[in-house]
Amino acid sequence: MNYQKILEDIAEEIKPHLKDGHVADYIPALAKVDPEQFAMSLTLFDGTQYHVGDTETLFSIQSISKVFTFTLALKFYNNSIYKRIGVEPSGNPFNSLVQLEYENGKPRNPFINAGAINMTDALVKHYKNAELTYKEVLNFIKEIADDNSISLNDVILKSEKEHGYRNIALANLMKSFNNLDNDVSEVVDIYFKHCSLEMNTKMLSRTMLYLANHGEDPISKKTHISQRQAKRINSVMLTCGHYDASGDFAFNVGLPGKSGVGGGIVAVVPKLMGISVWAPALNEQGNSLVGTMALELFTTKTGLSIF
Amino acid sequence: MNYQKILEDIAEEIKPHLKDGHVADYIPALAKVDPEQFAMSLTLFDGTQYHVGDTETLFSIQSISKVFTFTLALKFYNNSIYKRIGVEPSGNPFNSLVQLEYENGKPRNPFINAGAINMTDALVKHYKNAELTYKEVLNFIKEIADDNSISLNDVILKSEKEHGYRNIALANLMKSFNNLDNDVSEVVDIYFKHCSLEMNTKMLSRTMLYLANHGEDPISKKTHISQRQAKRINSVMLTCGHYDASGDFAFNVGLPGKSGVGGGIVAVVPKLMGISVWAPALNEQGNSLVGTMALELFTTKTGLSIF
Amino acid sequence: MNYQKILEDIAEEIKPHLKDGHVADYIPALAKVDPEQFAMSLTLFDGTQYHVGDTETLFSIQSISKVFTFTLALKFYNNSIYKRIGVEPSGNPFNSLVQLEYENGKPRNPFINAGAINMTDALVKHYKNAELTYKEVLNFIKEIADDNSISLNDVILKSEKEHGYRNIALANLMKSFNNLDNDVSEVVDIYFKHCSLEMNTKMLSRTMLYLANHGEDPISKKTHISQRQAKRINSVMLTCGHYDASGDFAFNVGLPGKSGVGGGIVAVVPKLMGISVWAPALNEQGNSLVGTMALELFTTKTGLSIF
Amino acid sequence: MNYQKILEDIAEEIKPHLKDGHVADYIPALAKVDPEQFAMSLTLFDGTQYHVGDTETLFSIQSISKVFTFTLALKFYNNSIYKRIGVEPSGNPFNSLVQLEYENGKPRNPFINAGAINMTDALVKHYKNAELTYKEVLNFIKEIADDNSISLNDVILKSEKEHGYRNIALANLMKSFNNLDNDVSEVVDIYFKHCSLEMNTKMLSRTMLYLANHGEDPISKKTHISQRQAKRINSVMLTCGHYDASGDFAFNVGLPGKSGVGGGIVAVVPKLMGISVWAPALNEQGNSLVGTMALELFTTKTGLSIF
Repeated sequence: MNYQKILEDIAEEIKPHLKDGHVADYIPALAKVDPEQFAMSLTLFDGTQYHVGDTETLFSIQSISKVFTFTLALKFYNNSIYKRIGVEPSGNPFNSLVQLEYENGKPRNPFINAGAINMTDALVKHYKNAELTYKEVLNFIKEIADDNSISLNDVILKSEKEHGYRNIALANLMKSFNNLDNDVSEVVDIYFKHCSLEMNTKMLSRTMLYLANHGEDPISKKTHISQRQAKRINSVMLTCGHYDASGDFAFNVGLPGKSGVGGGIVAVVPKLMGISVWAPALNEQGNSLVGTMALELFTTKTGLSIF
Repeated sequence: MNYQKILEDIAEEIKPHLKDGHVADYIPALAKVDPEQFAMSLTLFDGTQYHVGDTETLFSIQSISKVFTFTLALKFYNNSIYKRIGVEPSGNPFNSLVQLEYENGKPRNPFINAGAINMTDALVKHYKNAELTYKEVLNFIKEIADDNSISLNDVILKSEKEHGYRNIALANLMKSFNNLDNDVSEVVDIYFKHCSLEMNTKMLSRTMLYLANHGEDPISKKTHISQRQAKRINSVMLTCGHYDASGDFAFNVGLPGKSGVGGGIVAVVPKLMGISVWAPALNEQGNSLVGTMALELFTTKTGLSIF
Repeated sequence: MNYQKILEDIAEEIKPHLKDGHVADYIPALAKVDPEQFAMSLTLFDGTQYHVGDTETLFSIQSISKVFTFTLALKFYNNSIYKRIGVEPSGNPFNSLVQLEYENGKPRNPFINAGAINMTDALVKHYKNAELTYKEVLNFIKEIADDNSISLNDVILKSEKEHGYRNIALANLMKSFNNLDNDVSEVVDIYFKHCSLEMNTKMLSRTMLYLANHGEDPISKKTHISQRQAKRINSVMLTCGHYDASGDFAFNVGLPGKSGVGGGIVAVVPKLMGISVWAPALNEQGNSLVGTMALELFTTKTGLSIF
Repeated sequence: MNYQKILEDIAEEIKPHLKDGHVADYIPALAKVDPEQFAMSLTLFDGTQYHVGDTETLFSIQSISKVFTFTLALKFYNNSIYKRIGVEPSGNPFNSLVQLEYENGKPRNPFINAGAINMTDALVKHYKNAELTYKEVLNFIKEIADDNSISLNDVILKSEKEHGYRNIALANLMKSFNNLDNDVSEVVDIYFKHCSLEMNTKMLSRTMLYLANHGEDPISKKTHISQRQAKRINSVMLTCGHYDASGDFAFNVGLPGKSGVGGGIVAVVPKLMGISVWAPALNEQGNSLVGTMALELFTTKTGLSIF
């Protein structure tokens, strides 16, 4: 298949929609991003990459980091992680305290904020140190992105901390239900750090290879997680990866994926490739409007949907 | 692949678990069913069938009927059906009024009770007659099952009506939000009739062929719905087909499917076959315990998961 | 105290506010009422009455009827009535299904719709006949109003039935929790009939005497309920009588009272008198805007608040 | 009236019930209290006091402190305080986050935890310093108790901090809705300090005099708040003072009052006296079981209910 041509066609077709939607404005640092940017990258199992748009431009990965913390938590705890979190869709806004309270402090899945904070706590417990946890997660991301330059954006991090009261509330609520082991501030700090990492679609498409290849990196040949664990992450991405538009994403795109409010999305074509797309303006459900559109065009043009 | 051998192996492996779980007891007529029964059938595109267990025994299809009413509603209304229902997972017990109230009478998806009642209402509006609606839905099921003998169980129907107050409450709540067009009693009666139909796994596995084959029946060559509509139904089955265990089913089985509290499950292997399994005892989430297990064994043994 | 002068002063002071608020519009028959009407009546223990405004004009008593059905249910069942309902404020919109579901079909108090429907069911069980229940409640109201002319408004009743789906939903939900004994339609019909009765402030102020006098009618000397039962009704009126403005009413007016969306309010000055006020336009919480104001002026001018 | 005799009769009558109920166990320091203690005190406007039981024994005042912080917040902000809190009953467990989220971070009343934390925040804003706020509230309590010895219990305070995650969650949730002005930790620390104060029934009955006397201390003649503010506090105590048993307390006792999980209750007989009772074991709603019983006996014996 001529992937380069397909990407260029997509870039052309989405152009009229770059003015639609709204950039995330819950923190000032994100609100300032120029909304009319677009990038899309594919990485195949042999390392070949295809790019279109601003694929070198770094952006805030935000909730995409939840895939990586869930991966490591699953790696270290395996099935015992399900004492802490569920794997069912939430059917509610992504940061609601209501459901968390009704379900006694156990987040429904690792891709809502409470779930990702909880996974961070599990990692802090594993590494026995908050700062080390941040570093090890970053090292894992650098490894699977095959890029040592990845770092966090201090302005975003500061902004997250200044506007993160709801996340701190979620963490304290879990703590009150005895479902958080470490100091709340330390855990939430590390969670914010992971959200504040900056990457581009080139790097992100590369990170998805281990999920497309049963847990093993097809280039480095390193096994990060088991086949069963990779399948679990893919299925949770499919059913819970896009907040309250997960069902629509499953239908329209038909690939496991995860979006972030920075406008980035990662997706997995099982046994074939990793994908990442970026366009900062969001739709009503908080997912990249043009990014979702581009992925839908991609599976339509290539027939690479799982359905 | 030796499907017959696979089915027989599965029947052997699930045997020790036939005593687990509990038969649905919300209506007396279901509570009386002998829990230790099991049946599993596959139907390929050329009509070849493989069976194991009590595949001739009729059982109450219950919520499996929701797949058929959604199919016809989607066929007649296409995208305008989404004014009435959503396609997102519910994240709540299957018949909760809470979510319906918070979302102004619009059911989250067609596979929760409120959604299926609403689809029935859409069909009554289309056919302009409640009794005719029942007959046309039944005719559609007979056609895709390739079996004219299908009928409803009067004892089950009577039992449904005597214990269906929560469903009547759901219907009235939708009516109060102007999201139900016809007389509440008439609509709910038809809904109960569809739930009270009796079929066996032989018939049910046959019904799934149009969903496995892009909307077209591969044997009769009749196109029931468009490719896009079939894809939508499959994706909603994957994300919402098993109440609050949909995520787990997606992971463990990895096929679009729908369960009913009568213990039946239907599933779709895209481009290949329709499957049905039956075992009356349910797990905590209200899905057939052994049926779910059998499907998991099937995709493990055949590698036919979509992930 | 010169009650006549006080009433006339109040009528003068509220005049500029008769244009404020909005007439109930959930049923067409109520929406047509001329909003700029006002009436206020007091009835003392010796039968002396004081009136100002349109005190002969009949209006729909609506939820004021809940006081009378609770009275009779308490009379016939005494404390065993609390198996069916609570006596705590609801802290939610007056007809919410959410709370009813979370509390397993037991209404929080007899003055929310679910609670009054439940009290009607208790009365139908007691009288063993729905139509007889309607007549006996009407007879009780005629007796305590000392007026045989009271009847229901057919247009309002028809309108209630045509727009009462939420109430039917509430009744079915209670039925599904086994907290409703009789046929849902029959019970809700009788409930609607009581809401559709028409009375004026002259009659209504007279009805409150038994509650102001420990359960005994001070004029006829007939004991309707026990002292303890009267105290219970008064305390529930104080804490739950005005939907989600009950706390504000308790503070500003400081009298047990009950409002209806027809714009009427009844109130009790213990050991002294019954009061009724009417002004059709409602405030945001669904209580008569000018009526609440008039009662507040009354307790300010007379010092007759319980605080 | 022979108050001493009445108190002694009450002490005799409640004796068989001292073994009922359960001491609060959410913090270890409270769980250790001997449950079979009892004390009751009355303070009249001329300073005369009547006592029975362990009236010199200090106990943790817990939520009774909410009356004092609401008093000062109302004094400094008057009606503008209602931008921050409501005055309606909550109809939910006393520390639920659900309602706070649905109502956009505005607590329903000053006597639920979120409301009291918010009042503390208002005071920190007024005094411009957290530690000063603690001291000024303590000074106010010392003044109205006419006792300079009042201080906090360090063990209780430490325990509160170690188990206060839900309160910290509530505060962060309010902060996320911009309904908290100061640093969350500082505000919650001060809130915990007020809850950790220790007093006895002798002191507490004395503190209620300003509320019984229209805002003015009848002994010192000092006006603490306006008549209207005192009326507001009394009405909120009546409708919201006892968690989800407020309606029952209003009925059975018929006096404005406030309970704490330390087993203490304060109550107000308007124009006559302040009351305090203490018995550590709680009923299901979290109010002193024997304390509630003693107050009910008191109003029955004296006829001093407001109904």
